[in-house]
Amino acid sequence: MRAVVIDQQLRFTEFAELREPREGEIVVDVLQAGICETDLQLCRGYMGFQGIPGHEFVGIARGGRFAGQRVVGEINCACNKCSACLRGMGNHCPNRTVIGILNHDGAFADRLLVPEENLLLVPETLTTDQAVFVEPLAAACRIPQQIPVSGRQAVVLGAGRLGNLCAQVLAHHGCEVTVIGRHEEKLRLLADRGIAVTRLDEMTPERTADVVVDCTGSPTGFPLALQLVRPCGAVVLKTTVADSQTMQMAPVVIDEVQVIGSRCGPFDIALQLLSDGHVDVAPLLSARYPLEDAVAAFEHARRKDTLKVLLDIA
Amino acid sequence: MRAVVIDQQLRFTEFAELREPREGEIVVDVLQAGICETDLQLCRGYMGFQGIPGHEFVGIARGGRFAGQRVVGEINCACNKCSACLRGMGNHCPNRTVIGILNHDGAFADRLLVPEENLLLVPETLTTDQAVFVEPLAAACRIPQQIPVSGRQAVVLGAGRLGNLCAQVLAHHGCEVTVIGRHEEKLRLLADRGIAVTRLDEMTPERTADVVVDCTGSPTGFPLALQLVRPCGAVVLKTTVADSQTMQMAPVVIDEVQVIGSRCGPFDIALQLLSDGHVDVAPLLSARYPLEDAVAAFEHARRKDTLKVLLDIA
Repeated sequence: MRAVVIDQQLRFTEFAELREPREGEIVVDVLQAGICETDLQLCRGYMGFQGIPGHEFVGIARGGRFAGQRVVGEINCACNKCSACLRGMGNHCPNRTVIGILNHDGAFADRLLVPEENLLLVPETLTTDQAVFVEPLAAACRIPQQIPVSGRQAVVLGAGRLGNLCAQVLAHHGCEVTVIGRHEEKLRLLADRGIAVTRLDEMTPERTADVVVDCTGSPTGFPLALQLVRPCGAVVLKTTVADSQTMQMAPVVIDEVQVIGSRCGPFDIALQLLSDGHVDVAPLLSARYPLEDAVAAFEHARRKDTLKVLLDIA
Repeated sequence: MRAVVIDQQLRFTEFAELREPREGEIVVDVLQAGICETDLQLCRGYMGFQGIPGHEFVGIARGGRFAGQRVVGEINCACNKCSACLRGMGNHCPNRTVIGILNHDGAFADRLLVPEENLLLVPETLTTDQAVFVEPLAAACRIPQQIPVSGRQAVVLGAGRLGNLCAQVLAHHGCEVTVIGRHEEKLRLLADRGIAVTRLDEMTPERTADVVVDCTGSPTGFPLALQLVRPCGAVVLKTTVADSQTMQMAPVVIDEVQVIGSRCGPFDIALQLLSDGHVDVAPLLSARYPLEDAVAAFEHARRKDTLKVLLDIA
């Protein structure tokens, strides 16, 4: 089958092979997949990943209860046996594979294998172009599961793909949101939805936010968040910074700040938000490429002015 | 009056002066005061403090509703006017002074000035040697105010003054506590109270703790805490590290760890715990010095084998 592979470098091949399915796994024919910041980091050696990347996808299930229908899939494949799994924390199973990220070939290919329990049906009311955003939108939906947000003042750092989705989700939950970003165009998309925006170079840090969400993907994000959060407020770290960073932790203690790591979220809630029209993903689509042109698509996704780049696979 | 002063260096003087009281302040004649890690850091330039240190004290109020009686005093002196104060967050008032730490002369002196609203009566059942531990014990009592601890597995890093008190408080709240420390003697004090202990050099890091409390006062504490906390668990940072530290934040995000800064706590609860005999502070007393010998007392407090050093003032 066709696939994009990371080994020495990122490359396209027509001769990838699907491994044998494990118990409970379903073959999914991929329709479309999205390139995410994590994919760009995997290319730079993050997680030491080798194989087929891709974890944001819509496909057609070949078997199981959704056979022949469009599906999306949660990316953490749990063992269902360990103590974390038995406590309902499969997303944190120490034995898990993660689709397209950890010991599990991903969706930048004609087909991939997904545990049936990870699949969710895409409602007919949603286009595939919308449904491909379910994975990052679910990550944004994780925040209200972790901390109370309604009625609170929130700052989102970063107006990129994830920052945009987090801002929309928080606004939907009754948060008073301001997004701080570098790029006029990306900020305008948010302003068009009635969300307050400020350019980073025009911002005066004030320690007043109840919640600051760091979606910068940069080591500068967390220290900046600490300049914006009020005492006893919360800083949500949404993006991983692979490298070590040097910073002062004393302000966290003195101001009793709560720092919360936040990763994958609920796909069902994300699907519902899209179906109900509460989150608009259409403006986030920057470009689409056929799978064969994945290397060019990755190049495009790296450009600072880009939001989401999609791969059309079937 | 006699006092210990930090200016160029720590020194004893017989000729310190008490400033004019501000509205609402009461003169307190100091009976006894404890030397804390923060005091040692102030000597090294932390907070740029100049003046009389000392924030753990028992004294006799000269006026107000507790006139002539033994009192302890909360150390954050709020403005009672700003938005933080009006929200009941006086401990985080941006205009606050902090006794012996920030723009407010402290208790290593014959007398100090304390807002009357900060004073609490010491019950007659408590000795002054016990009551002098109220401030650090209150800091330990802050943890159960911030996160649920009952029935959870907790690791306390550090068997020093604060680590010991945090362990006792958590154990009292029904936590299954293990203290990890370097010093056999300090660990033995905890073991004598039925608290599990492990020597740092004999520990195998396992990521199983629901809560890890960092009382090391060292930049190594937080990274070690991340090696011990389970996914979605909490790391409580109790001690400030003045310098920058270099570390990876990615594990916080990937494992959705909650990092909670924790500072001053409720004096009333601490007094109650001491009165009810739920916390034993007697074994923490390493040495006592007269105020005149404060420089030697500070030297003693710096020694690794030391727990609490007290200054007898009246």
